[in-house]
Amino acid sequence: MRLQDIARGVRAGDIDPVELAENALARAERAADLGAVVHLDPEGALRAARQVRSGPLAGVPVLVKELIEVEGLPFTCGSDVFADRVGEADAEMVARLRAAGAVVIGLTYTHEFAYGCTGAANRRGPCRNPRDRTRMAGGSSSGSAAAVAAGVVPLAIGTDTAGSVRIPAALCGVVGVKPAFGTLPTRGVFPLAPSLDHVGVLAGNVEDAAYAVRVLGRLVGGRGPITPRLAVPARSQECAPEVAEAFARATGFVTEKVWLPDAEEALTDLQGPEAAAVHAGIFPEKADDYQAETRALLEAARQVPGWRYVRALERRRQIVRAAEEALKDVDAVVMPTVPILAPLLGEPGVRPALLRNTRFASLTGLPAVSLPMPVEGPLPAGLQVVGLDETRVLAAAAWLENALDRSL
Amino acid sequence: MRLQDIARGVRAGDIDPVELAENALARAERAADLGAVVHLDPEGALRAARQVRSGPLAGVPVLVKELIEVEGLPFTCGSDVFADRVGEADAEMVARLRAAGAVVIGLTYTHEFAYGCTGAANRRGPCRNPRDRTRMAGGSSSGSAAAVAAGVVPLAIGTDTAGSVRIPAALCGVVGVKPAFGTLPTRGVFPLAPSLDHVGVLAGNVEDAAYAVRVLGRLVGGRGPITPRLAVPARSQECAPEVAEAFARATGFVTEKVWLPDAEEALTDLQGPEAAAVHAGIFPEKADDYQAETRALLEAARQVPGWRYVRALERRRQIVRAAEEALKDVDAVVMPTVPILAPLLGEPGVRPALLRNTRFASLTGLPAVSLPMPVEGPLPAGLQVVGLDETRVLAAAAWLENALDRSL
Repeated sequence: MRLQDIARGVRAGDIDPVELAENALARAERAADLGAVVHLDPEGALRAARQVRSGPLAGVPVLVKELIEVEGLPFTCGSDVFADRVGEADAEMVARLRAAGAVVIGLTYTHEFAYGCTGAANRRGPCRNPRDRTRMAGGSSSGSAAAVAAGVVPLAIGTDTAGSVRIPAALCGVVGVKPAFGTLPTRGVFPLAPSLDHVGVLAGNVEDAAYAVRVLGRLVGGRGPITPRLAVPARSQECAPEVAEAFARATGFVTEKVWLPDAEEALTDLQGPEAAAVHAGIFPEKADDYQAETRALLEAARQVPGWRYVRALERRRQIVRAAEEALKDVDAVVMPTVPILAPLLGEPGVRPALLRNTRFASLTGLPAVSLPMPVEGPLPAGLQVVGLDETRVLAAAAWLENALDRSL
Repeated sequence: MRLQDIARGVRAGDIDPVELAENALARAERAADLGAVVHLDPEGALRAARQVRSGPLAGVPVLVKELIEVEGLPFTCGSDVFADRVGEADAEMVARLRAAGAVVIGLTYTHEFAYGCTGAANRRGPCRNPRDRTRMAGGSSSGSAAAVAAGVVPLAIGTDTAGSVRIPAALCGVVGVKPAFGTLPTRGVFPLAPSLDHVGVLAGNVEDAAYAVRVLGRLVGGRGPITPRLAVPARSQECAPEVAEAFARATGFVTEKVWLPDAEEALTDLQGPEAAAVHAGIFPEKADDYQAETRALLEAARQVPGWRYVRALERRRQIVRAAEEALKDVDAVVMPTVPILAPLLGEPGVRPALLRNTRFASLTGLPAVSLPMPVEGPLPAGLQVVGLDETRVLAAAAWLENALDRSL
């Protein structure tokens, strides 16, 4: 059932929000071996559910990434550094969820401090992929993607700085939306790199994800054209064969090509210093409390010289202008969200491949959706849709989801 | 004669702009030993003077800091790095001067790349203080201040990133205005640190300087109150005795005190990385072509880590808010522009003292004026006027100049 239908049913009194919450809590318990849900709040959830009467998300059970502050719940960011920390107030995003009638049932796993994309660095160990428990869920919003993929909740909240919503969405086979920069509020989210940090949503289908973004981002306006103008990147993508084949099949009808500027260096030079500034005073002072992977990243981040940061700020402005020029005549450019399938847990050196295709929309702040793309074999793959106009990107993703369904 | 009177006379045909230019060129020749004027353009000046008919600065001879691009004139920034560089187009500021009817007669000495405040680092050697040729003129707009102090021109253009208009104005005994950030255009100025770079003016009195800023900055609006509400910093200033005494005498009637946040660390952490980014690709590659002082500064600047730059950006926002709060009930805060008198040429270690009081308005981008303050002995001192509102700061400076004149 779609989010709109759930909320409509709850508002009409046809669906019992307490039962929705109880069922979600029970599903979360059953999926405990995934490590996706790191904290359940049955008491708070049931209390909230009993009070739900109205709202565009009335009664919808949601999970929130543990990087986002929720009053009274653990706020550890997946790290021993904040092992005993408890949220003192609701993040703006949580306040908006509650105002819309959603019921927060608990917290989901984050790659420690959101500083990584494998979902394998957290005080609790790795998060597992529901499609194959020996494989990575991706990250950093690992638990939100895995929980939606496992059917625990129809909607979960994540964050995305370089791909952290879209990568786990692709690896777990769900929809992830990283809206345009600023569409969803970051107040109360523990920052990774503030000039790049986005809040995003994960859901089972594009319609639900888009609906949640519109409601929570308070977007107005139409949904754009019915048949979107699409392009693929002019630069050919290095992909795993399964992903390349799936992408070719999914986008065979797209003839338009656009040149996209390379975002890697600028993003790295922005993210590192901003992350190191956020952690200044904690790292290196409490370096031993960080996971080894995070420690290594922060050590490298502290070494990035200021002049490179300054140059990256300028480079970002150039890349934004280049992106606006490249995409001005299409609704969206599509590419594989991640060029590889979910790696086995413990597989080394996968970070560069995982991040390769998501950085562009992170650096530019452009809206991006990852939706499942039909692929041979048991593991999912994601199709990423990026464009200048948020409404049109969401509409293009919905159109693509429908077209891919029909092609099966 | 005031700038307005010169321009009025020229427009009315009572004053010959060619004669004005010739006289200024001759005075520049006579003052050659100062090293203030690094290039004269008699041909261009006389050609321009012959064509002058109109404009709020009609016929006013001006000198432009060699850091500012002027079509056809050397554009060396005082450095062997650009020994053979020639301006390809007029900087926006030069275009505005010409549009206002001013006649550019040549270029003034800059401390190399504007990266210093002593006026002692330049491919040509030091710039000398007209009040005592054994002493520093200050910097980096050394030549513009010295040329005005020596009576070569009634108006000269400088730049100010951490005090580079105000410091030489104070040391040479003229008026220097660093307008609010963005009031005068920096396009075509070789950058030092773009988020801190200001263009400013130097003149013999506040009225002329304020008039030039209004004309060239295209400011509109009234001149504020006749009797300004003034404050002094609550933190007592460490000053040379002559400066302390002069300041006490000049501001004895001011009872209001305001706490000003400390700008030093944030400014240093912003300026260094921005300067190093500007010079990336030239420095360290051509390190040997830089003056030793500049080389040392750039070497240190390249070492500032990015996370400190990021933290300084945040700190600047906090300091701006604190400054807005501290100054909201006054028109201006006044303090010695420079806490010491002009040091002897070659005196080491004077940089921190020279920069101490000017950084605050640089970091915050607030408008600031330095005007001469009566002081015992042959060397001048400057009184700095800083506030939130540009028009009120200029009016307060004019009021103070008049009050100090009357007190003599």
